[in-house]
Amino acid sequence: MPDLTTIGFDADDTLWHNETLFHMTQTRFAALLADAADPAHLAERLEAAERRNLGHYGFGVKGFMLSMIETAIEVTGGRVQSSVISEILAAGREMLAHPVDLLRHARETIAALAPDYRILIITKGDLLDQERKVAQSGLGDLVHGVEIVSDKTAATYRTLFARHGTGPERAMMVGNSLKSDVLPALEAGAWGIYVPHGLTWALERADVPQGAARFRSIPDLAPLPALVRGL
Amino acid sequence: MPDLTTIGFDADDTLWHNETLFHMTQTRFAALLADAADPAHLAERLEAAERRNLGHYGFGVKGFMLSMIETAIEVTGGRVQSSVISEILAAGREMLAHPVDLLRHARETIAALAPDYRILIITKGDLLDQERKVAQSGLGDLVHGVEIVSDKTAATYRTLFARHGTGPERAMMVGNSLKSDVLPALEAGAWGIYVPHGLTWALERADVPQGAARFRSIPDLAPLPALVRGL
Repeated sequence: MPDLTTIGFDADDTLWHNETLFHMTQTRFAALLADAADPAHLAERLEAAERRNLGHYGFGVKGFMLSMIETAIEVTGGRVQSSVISEILAAGREMLAHPVDLLRHARETIAALAPDYRILIITKGDLLDQERKVAQSGLGDLVHGVEIVSDKTAATYRTLFARHGTGPERAMMVGNSLKSDVLPALEAGAWGIYVPHGLTWALERADVPQGAARFRSIPDLAPLPALVRGL
Repeated sequence: MPDLTTIGFDADDTLWHNETLFHMTQTRFAALLADAADPAHLAERLEAAERRNLGHYGFGVKGFMLSMIETAIEVTGGRVQSSVISEILAAGREMLAHPVDLLRHARETIAALAPDYRILIITKGDLLDQERKVAQSGLGDLVHGVEIVSDKTAATYRTLFARHGTGPERAMMVGNSLKSDVLPALEAGAWGIYVPHGLTWALERADVPQGAARFRSIPDLAPLPALVRGL
């Protein structure tokens, strides 16, 4: 087997906390609309709006804000107070300004691997927001490249591992989303390492792959260097 | 002087219409809020919101939608109807689905230069939306690379012309924004070719550079191949 040269890391909920922040904002959103909708119904309508709008808005906080506003109008039958809309705007801006909070083991794991492998951060979301988070993470100097993409498919990984590395066969993708990080990386011929996160956005859920020789699952990033060196 | 190898094109209002669409949406926005604000005051408040939010939202349609919503709440003193917010959301989604309308001479100019130069599209805005427009433009097969960036500075051009070409000294940037396309490209050491567009967003305005040896201005893209070959 040719040696591994390149390791891609997802960012949100792989290197730093993200879904926690969305979750907190949704809790605040539910409180704002408590008179109009029970939390389960509201969450369902918001998820439907996010799915409906994904092709227009793509991933990220700005689209989430727009879908919350649309859902607030929907569940109130158009009687939403403008103060609620202002609160949604404020909550979104707070998300976009929220300090980056690295996950445990993120820095030490990347620092341990960076001398021997090309480390990439491959993330999706709003361009400016993701750039801000990479800059604030302090990981920029340890990584070979940062790619912010609109979606993560097998073609994405083929292109990026060719551009920054030596092709997908000698590359690995590490992330908390089976759907975006692991399955398409495996399909591209790379290793796919699943690092589950307690919270997973509904649109990112998928089944664990069966019988994939290059699939591994680890509970957090700490065992990754040993896993990589033991391949 | 070393030969030119690489030509970067801005996209919005250089290769295809864009500001026209923003302008049409702003006209619709003014009509929706005609009872609350006169158009000049509304435009001023919207521009102030866009400036205030630029650091959070970056460039693009989604941020524009969010700033329109915020402005609608502001100018009505919080008494905006939710139907107005819904109309703003609909207008934004229409912008994100609007067919790409190439500017005159865009295709023939790129086709004339592509055999001899590395052609790049360098654009800012929402990632997914810009990717969609490049795909729909039909220009993708003629260009060497597409870069969607969060901002256009001298550092941006140094990095991109090194990555895709042979450095800024042997590169040219062509665009309708003095502020984003021409001045930072000149600062990076590249040629800066200004192709004015009738409409320019307030946040993109700047003065024509004086005494810059590598600055040129052309009325549209048609004279560009002759200009390039005559350098």
